[in-house]
Amino acid sequence: MIAEILCVGTELLMGQVLNTNAQFISRRLSALGISQYHQTVVGDNAERLEEAYRLALSRADVVITSGGLGPTVDDITKRVAAKVAGKELVLRPEAEQMVRERFQQYHKHMTMNNMSQAMFTEDTILMLNPNGTAPGAIVPMGEGKVVIHLPGPPYELQPMFIDQVEPWLQKRSGQVLVSRYIRIFGMGESEVDQRLQELEMQSNPSLSPYCSLGEVQLRATACAATKEEALALVLPLVDKVKSILGDVVYAVNEDDRGSLAISAVEALKKAGKTVATAESLTGGLISSTMVEVPGASQVVRGGFVTYQTDTKTILLGVPAETIERCNVVSAEVAMAMAKGAREKLGTDIAVSATGLAGPDGGTPEIPVGTVYLGLATQKGVQAIRLDLAGNRDRIRTLTVKHALDAVRKACLDN
Amino acid sequence: MIAEILCVGTELLMGQVLNTNAQFISRRLSALGISQYHQTVVGDNAERLEEAYRLALSRADVVITSGGLGPTVDDITKRVAAKVAGKELVLRPEAEQMVRERFQQYHKHMTMNNMSQAMFTEDTILMLNPNGTAPGAIVPMGEGKVVIHLPGPPYELQPMFIDQVEPWLQKRSGQVLVSRYIRIFGMGESEVDQRLQELEMQSNPSLSPYCSLGEVQLRATACAATKEEALALVLPLVDKVKSILGDVVYAVNEDDRGSLAISAVEALKKAGKTVATAESLTGGLISSTMVEVPGASQVVRGGFVTYQTDTKTILLGVPAETIERCNVVSAEVAMAMAKGAREKLGTDIAVSATGLAGPDGGTPEIPVGTVYLGLATQKGVQAIRLDLAGNRDRIRTLTVKHALDAVRKACLDN
Repeated sequence: MIAEILCVGTELLMGQVLNTNAQFISRRLSALGISQYHQTVVGDNAERLEEAYRLALSRADVVITSGGLGPTVDDITKRVAAKVAGKELVLRPEAEQMVRERFQQYHKHMTMNNMSQAMFTEDTILMLNPNGTAPGAIVPMGEGKVVIHLPGPPYELQPMFIDQVEPWLQKRSGQVLVSRYIRIFGMGESEVDQRLQELEMQSNPSLSPYCSLGEVQLRATACAATKEEALALVLPLVDKVKSILGDVVYAVNEDDRGSLAISAVEALKKAGKTVATAESLTGGLISSTMVEVPGASQVVRGGFVTYQTDTKTILLGVPAETIERCNVVSAEVAMAMAKGAREKLGTDIAVSATGLAGPDGGTPEIPVGTVYLGLATQKGVQAIRLDLAGNRDRIRTLTVKHALDAVRKACLDN
Repeated sequence: MIAEILCVGTELLMGQVLNTNAQFISRRLSALGISQYHQTVVGDNAERLEEAYRLALSRADVVITSGGLGPTVDDITKRVAAKVAGKELVLRPEAEQMVRERFQQYHKHMTMNNMSQAMFTEDTILMLNPNGTAPGAIVPMGEGKVVIHLPGPPYELQPMFIDQVEPWLQKRSGQVLVSRYIRIFGMGESEVDQRLQELEMQSNPSLSPYCSLGEVQLRATACAATKEEALALVLPLVDKVKSILGDVVYAVNEDDRGSLAISAVEALKKAGKTVATAESLTGGLISSTMVEVPGASQVVRGGFVTYQTDTKTILLGVPAETIERCNVVSAEVAMAMAKGAREKLGTDIAVSATGLAGPDGGTPEIPVGTVYLGLATQKGVQAIRLDLAGNRDRIRTLTVKHALDAVRKACLDN
């Protein structure tokens, strides 16, 4: 099965909106084993949209649109698809019901033109939109091909895709695809690759890597007639990968929404431990990344942002003499920061970071990218030196990831 | 002039990379007044890329590619364009020099295949890449049309586009387009729109809005034969808008890279004031957003993350009795937090935030989205109540924006 994504909206051509929908749909299709060779964006123009439909349908079995399902005259996605299919849009009572319910829920007044959101061809399969007024649709286009209409806002599109489009695609393919996402931090892609060479790689189950800043994610996927059979293929592969790679594997998830912050917060909860932070170059980013995780308030007590040098002494009791003697970017200062934060907030664990994010301030001894993490636990205080490369943003983001991983690991060894 | 963007890379079709390049180029083209009707993504496949070039060149005068300029066999963007132009790639000595210099700068070993990055058609205009090894290129395709090759990484593509592609496009169009970006916080789009109705809107200079979370940006653009003439059209319009909207205009920039954080840090520097933070629901995000601005260390002293309730008492001296009596989400607690942070760190200004980001914990009296900011200055302490809607992320992001705006305004009234 070949799919093609066709995003509709002049706001995309103007650059007013970032096309996150194309990435979301692509990742999900790729996880389902469905190939894609083209993606297209066109504006709210009927003639160009019609051409785009015809071209996409000449190349793909499934054309997935996003956007243009609203009630205004600019919203032409459905109308033009119907024209290409050679059919009429009619008011579908089930769709009218969906639209009316949503307006009631939002206590909004419905105008006549909102009824256009309930117009579909007779043979269209409707999809409920729990997060907006426009229903989605699967529209038969002849020769076994379909156009799938999804709403533009990501919070409407994403659940509709996962809950309604994916089961339909899987049913149509007659197979079940099951994936597990193995998340790795602290080992580069090439080393991961080398260590996994002892696995005899197969196409089912398959293992495919995806790298992001400092992280590697392996997607293990199996295809079978039932979910149970697919799981029986994929889970042993996951176990093998874990035993080969060891504790750099920080999570195995059923979807690709895991993160180091989630794993750190979960490890803290599981171990019944609390954490405090003491941040210099990251300025509060370690802490704010942890509190993004719902339920973080159980384990994240709070922390200190000690950005200017003397605040490390004032807030955390780092001796001014240590800063003077060892440099503010040093293992000694990082350890004193973590120790101070742990004591002031009475937590089980404290993590600290001091370093040079650049672009200025580097010296031959302490170049830009030098970062020290401090980790204080009931066992004592230690420092971790990081030598990071890249710009200010990259250095800070990697520092946060290393700090979160240090917190996670500190929960493991009791 | 009509342009079309053609992004090349299987990683885009797999959804491994978000296509920020398309948005960046679109916004810049739109600011230059250049129209775009289609955007396409294709994988690293020569046949499909050739078709995509031919289709794009049949519709547009300028086809802009991103990606596929690397040294591997997968990097086919230049080779296929040359084939479509009916020309040969040859080793261009100026390009070889560019590539060699970059390898020397990075202390990296150069392999034979890196020389492919210096291969271009004879009539190609080369563009220096200060941030990577692959030079960019403007390739004549016949009939006055061109293909412009840009590297895939955004930090390479963006400066090359601004510094080299835009001047070339402007020169070619024979006109100079000048824009100013008016950034607004604290007034909704519809109110901005209504207030500006007294301006007789023209097409030159023009004014176009762009909304992002909590913010409105107006782009004022004028087109003329010289930069001076264009400025003479655009600057009076900017002044009129500022006088109509007042202090909700927080910045007027020459490009669209401004932010509330930059304006807050600049206002602090200009006023010679320092700031401290005390954060609950934002967990360090106000502070880390400010320290993203280079040079923030002059004015951002540090701060406190007081996430669990009792840490507000321990770190900031908020009386437990006040928390008990008024609720932890209250004007009184926000003010006591700001007062505590200002005193402990000895700053001119301190800003605090306490509130409910949700999804749980709301009550009829204090629903999710209730946030209090505290602002302590030499004049005293005040609280600002915000009633925000949306999910956890949105509530925290808006809280940060309001806090930064409060800091900015506190610097204005001395």
